[in-house]
Amino acid sequence: MSQPQQFAPQQFAPQQFASDNYAGICPEAWAAMEAANAGSAPAYGNDDWTQRAADAFRALFASDCEVFFAFNGTAANSLALAALCQSYHSVICSSSAHVETDECGAPEFFSNGSKLLVATTADGKLTPEAIRGVATSRSDIHFPKPRVVTITQPTETGQVYSIDEIRAIAATCRALGLKLHMDGARFAHACAHLGCDPADITWRAGVDVLCFGGTKNGMAVGEAILFFDRALAQDFDYRCKQAGQLASKMRFLAAPWVGMLESGAWLRNAEHANGCASQLAAAIRDLPEVAPMFPVEANALFLQAPAALLEDLRERGWSFYTFIGGGARFMFAWDSDPARVDELAADIRAAREASAAIAA
Amino acid sequence: MSQPQQFAPQQFAPQQFASDNYAGICPEAWAAMEAANAGSAPAYGNDDWTQRAADAFRALFASDCEVFFAFNGTAANSLALAALCQSYHSVICSSSAHVETDECGAPEFFSNGSKLLVATTADGKLTPEAIRGVATSRSDIHFPKPRVVTITQPTETGQVYSIDEIRAIAATCRALGLKLHMDGARFAHACAHLGCDPADITWRAGVDVLCFGGTKNGMAVGEAILFFDRALAQDFDYRCKQAGQLASKMRFLAAPWVGMLESGAWLRNAEHANGCASQLAAAIRDLPEVAPMFPVEANALFLQAPAALLEDLRERGWSFYTFIGGGARFMFAWDSDPARVDELAADIRAAREASAAIAA
Amino acid sequence: MSQPQQFAPQQFAPQQFASDNYAGICPEAWAAMEAANAGSAPAYGNDDWTQRAADAFRALFASDCEVFFAFNGTAANSLALAALCQSYHSVICSSSAHVETDECGAPEFFSNGSKLLVATTADGKLTPEAIRGVATSRSDIHFPKPRVVTITQPTETGQVYSIDEIRAIAATCRALGLKLHMDGARFAHACAHLGCDPADITWRAGVDVLCFGGTKNGMAVGEAILFFDRALAQDFDYRCKQAGQLASKMRFLAAPWVGMLESGAWLRNAEHANGCASQLAAAIRDLPEVAPMFPVEANALFLQAPAALLEDLRERGWSFYTFIGGGARFMFAWDSDPARVDELAADIRAAREASAAIAA
Amino acid sequence: MSQPQQFAPQQFAPQQFASDNYAGICPEAWAAMEAANAGSAPAYGNDDWTQRAADAFRALFASDCEVFFAFNGTAANSLALAALCQSYHSVICSSSAHVETDECGAPEFFSNGSKLLVATTADGKLTPEAIRGVATSRSDIHFPKPRVVTITQPTETGQVYSIDEIRAIAATCRALGLKLHMDGARFAHACAHLGCDPADITWRAGVDVLCFGGTKNGMAVGEAILFFDRALAQDFDYRCKQAGQLASKMRFLAAPWVGMLESGAWLRNAEHANGCASQLAAAIRDLPEVAPMFPVEANALFLQAPAALLEDLRERGWSFYTFIGGGARFMFAWDSDPARVDELAADIRAAREASAAIAA
Repeated sequence: MSQPQQFAPQQFAPQQFASDNYAGICPEAWAAMEAANAGSAPAYGNDDWTQRAADAFRALFASDCEVFFAFNGTAANSLALAALCQSYHSVICSSSAHVETDECGAPEFFSNGSKLLVATTADGKLTPEAIRGVATSRSDIHFPKPRVVTITQPTETGQVYSIDEIRAIAATCRALGLKLHMDGARFAHACAHLGCDPADITWRAGVDVLCFGGTKNGMAVGEAILFFDRALAQDFDYRCKQAGQLASKMRFLAAPWVGMLESGAWLRNAEHANGCASQLAAAIRDLPEVAPMFPVEANALFLQAPAALLEDLRERGWSFYTFIGGGARFMFAWDSDPARVDELAADIRAAREASAAIAA
Repeated sequence: MSQPQQFAPQQFAPQQFASDNYAGICPEAWAAMEAANAGSAPAYGNDDWTQRAADAFRALFASDCEVFFAFNGTAANSLALAALCQSYHSVICSSSAHVETDECGAPEFFSNGSKLLVATTADGKLTPEAIRGVATSRSDIHFPKPRVVTITQPTETGQVYSIDEIRAIAATCRALGLKLHMDGARFAHACAHLGCDPADITWRAGVDVLCFGGTKNGMAVGEAILFFDRALAQDFDYRCKQAGQLASKMRFLAAPWVGMLESGAWLRNAEHANGCASQLAAAIRDLPEVAPMFPVEANALFLQAPAALLEDLRERGWSFYTFIGGGARFMFAWDSDPARVDELAADIRAAREASAAIAA
Repeated sequence: MSQPQQFAPQQFAPQQFASDNYAGICPEAWAAMEAANAGSAPAYGNDDWTQRAADAFRALFASDCEVFFAFNGTAANSLALAALCQSYHSVICSSSAHVETDECGAPEFFSNGSKLLVATTADGKLTPEAIRGVATSRSDIHFPKPRVVTITQPTETGQVYSIDEIRAIAATCRALGLKLHMDGARFAHACAHLGCDPADITWRAGVDVLCFGGTKNGMAVGEAILFFDRALAQDFDYRCKQAGQLASKMRFLAAPWVGMLESGAWLRNAEHANGCASQLAAAIRDLPEVAPMFPVEANALFLQAPAALLEDLRERGWSFYTFIGGGARFMFAWDSDPARVDELAADIRAAREASAAIAA
Repeated sequence: MSQPQQFAPQQFAPQQFASDNYAGICPEAWAAMEAANAGSAPAYGNDDWTQRAADAFRALFASDCEVFFAFNGTAANSLALAALCQSYHSVICSSSAHVETDECGAPEFFSNGSKLLVATTADGKLTPEAIRGVATSRSDIHFPKPRVVTITQPTETGQVYSIDEIRAIAATCRALGLKLHMDGARFAHACAHLGCDPADITWRAGVDVLCFGGTKNGMAVGEAILFFDRALAQDFDYRCKQAGQLASKMRFLAAPWVGMLESGAWLRNAEHANGCASQLAAAIRDLPEVAPMFPVEANALFLQAPAALLEDLRERGWSFYTFIGGGARFMFAWDSDPARVDELAADIRAAREASAAIAA
């Protein structure tokens, strides 16, 4: 190559908050990947980086848990649930759970047919009562047998289960003979909100398996699956391989975790993203007709607002989704620019004023 | 982070040739990934990098093919085969095909049961006769109906199908109503060996679907699936998503391909790796009792040698696998150091002499 | 065997109406099975009985349809849906559909993950609006793509779709690119109610595939799957075989259909069963506090009544299920005894009077 | 129906021995089915016949085993293997095993991908050495992990494992951590040959799960699955239901077993069929150029003979298959007529003489 390739800038400018998947790779993950790229290394996880990443998880959780890596959250959740279920079993989840609404039937595919049983609650968070209601509604062989509960921490709408809430759910699971899985696509954001030890909302509270998300928190790809009950992880390495989730150059899936966990970036990134959501919430708190649809506890703010106002906001150049209840979803990431958050707040205010002027 | 993280070197030193998966990320792929990391970008493939990578494939193949990206070769092959098969169909492959020997039943899993029918040939390359033999051996509903032929180009043992061989296989497939899939985990190495246009050994020769490997050729992760018959790609995006193979931050899966394809590195890397295999073959050609098990056409050299000699070689610090016929497998990569290849040749020669001395 | 085996009577006496699966084999099915048991015959459907049964279906439907036989309704429905779907597709059904509520995830299992999307309607019958609502609610690859609509004729609660209703649904399906499947576990009962030609509510109205039930209508086992669009039946024989639904001694699955169809018993049995439901409905029409929960159109009557009354009825020796809305389900069969129906009516009346006396 | 239906005779006349699936229902099974058809009975196995059949199995095996019923052998084997395996596990079987050669990928389908690993032996019977060879050939996650051994008793070619042979295999399985499944499609014929207690070649010898075939031994449909280790049967009822193998009118699947087991017909039928095979073998023992391909121990005789002789036999009106090694397969059933066996022997002799005359 006589001269360097030219890669013209193609990304969003200015920054958008439509998804935390729009963000790139954070410096700590990048640096680790760069370090991992020196020289050659054994394949399929028999390298030092994979060992080091797994150990970093064990240290963070103060647990001798089994650690596996998958390419994305859909696979991580589905593999974990399939390990806990047979095809004729069922999984109890919230109506807004990602496994139910946004994984294109992946849990059913990986498990060869396990049915998701949706428990509807007022705020989208599962409760012991809701779980018990679904789990005990049928007990005949004509309907899949409940076997697992999955909770999303924080939920798709950004709400965080407290330690006590998880403990209560876990106790219900144990009483009903169910395993407890946690979809932690934004697990770090929950830890940041609660200010607790990761163990407190997982194994110490009764969670059996955690899918810990890295992608939305500053990595290119990669989720970790942690089995706190090692017996449940039997032959899980075969499962990952067969399902196309074993990376040959595993070091590149593992090293970013080393960068994130050892440096503390996993938590700082989440704190930053949560902070941006709070910043926006605070900036528009006084606006009439405009309100968060859900408590702002993690890195999401769902904005309830008149349709005309949202339309105006789009015309001002903002991208966002409205698939949940028609509200505008804003998701913040490790790289969200607080100045840009202020711009968004200002535009919401301006749109609100324009809307009010028309109405008047 | 007050001070930078320390990542002590952990990789192999000196370099080993046990697998081309031991190599890291090549500069062109890295530079593209770095460029892609600027700013934010839409998720799930709706970004410019993904479009640009797909277009680069279409340009390279002079074909308006459908292009998809998967995380690894196991998934790419399995998804492609599942798209061509129903569960009660079968796939004809060589006894040494990676789908048969090294994917832990992934094709059967993704297809929900499609059986692999192994055609045995003298050199591991499928032939029209071998295919016809397997395809016509049964025609009753008590045995899975043949639906697809898969060939590995080059084979697991480093042999390359010629254009004419592929044309003949494709003609047989058409005559028998079978689709033709190519596992191109090292497709670039076959192109480098043949010096042909990629189209010549794919759609122009009658291949329906190609899995084009990037990982073994200098990328961190990522394989491309090319459907030359676009009708076969119907709803394939849903299939990828459901199977956990849709990257949310797709740009990081796509950008390295842009780096590889636009710069020509995809071919240069393969030529280099092939060259190292040839270099080793040439360096030991005169040695008695030591010989390549297969023609050295791509980046592999399988060394037939007395067990004691191989043991000696291990003691001299060399790593290699012997799972195929007990021979020592050496696989070269984009970063294989010719000086190190010379060291290997010298050690083989020394081991051979030591062995001869003992025998004498 | 020196003396005949003794089989003491073990069945219900007196007759119960808890399920139409409690009935035995009707004389016409039995006679055909007996005739089929003379001598030996080719296996796996290559016998005259299987041909004759398939021809009888084609004559009845005035259609050159493809006909297959499965052991039970769960398998028939699941195989048919799997033939219309890929794993990443979805099936739109009613919330009370048997495939959703009583097949233990069989559709998901046979299809390797196709999701059932429940459309809720006031009376449990799907409508064009309800189908359109579900089918168009999502159109992104993060959710299974709608591919099939399944309607149950009559519904689980005994309501019959009119010819016009089916036509309207079929038109909606065509407009949306969906296939239309009919679960006809009690298909004969719908024909008996409508007094129409079987073709009128199937292929002439736009149904693609029908599962025609025999078990609930007087057979020991056996459901027929009719593909009016023969192209959809491609390789379906392989599908049945692989899924464990190919009978080796197929004549015993086919002959009862010959007995049923050629004699007209298929319709007479259903008319009788429907008549018993009507008889009961008429006999209790005047009773206050007691009413059918749904229009009585087929062989079911769901009785809304005070809990104490139902309890009293149980004490009087009647068996019935209450899993739908707490009402008592009575299902009549080909062998239901009208005198026994009168006894049931009399006991309901007596229980109602006892209940009223207590209340007074 | 004003006059009885006419069912013209359609069966083979004279009798053929191409398959034991060509035979009808034996008197004992028929009588039980007839007795079971009196009145109504609870569905889904909650009837007395099902209980009585299960108890008859437990008495016959002197074991408190778990008993389930499936419609056919393909389903019974596949369900049993799926209960013992996960999708990434493998099943070791003989190259002539029905699960490998004649079930259209059903084991792979029911298990969602478990691979069958074929162990080749001289006579088609598995041995400890052959099992150990396959089981230990790989131990890496790139290949499915061996989990079950399945043996067919008697084999597809009519050879019977001795008690000692099964014990030795079971010991090997235990040593390797493998479960042992027995495909007993013709289990009765093995018992008849060995003259042993059914327990001696199953649980007492170390078999974990047995599929006991009824269809080939005089029933219309129906195989029993016996779990001698009850823990392995956990939730197996759900598995059967989901896979379309739960009969609603279960009494008709169970009652024939009552008729067969309580009367002793299960063994008499098999003894008769075995006797016919021996009769044929004895009758042609002296013929040159004509010989059994395998020891005649059960109800099969595979005849090695010149192609012209077999052709002559076909012209004399005999039907038979030649899919195993080109030999003519004759399978005898409970209803095989010894006089007709003599006719076959006479025709073989005549064909041999004609063939010899031509050669001379």
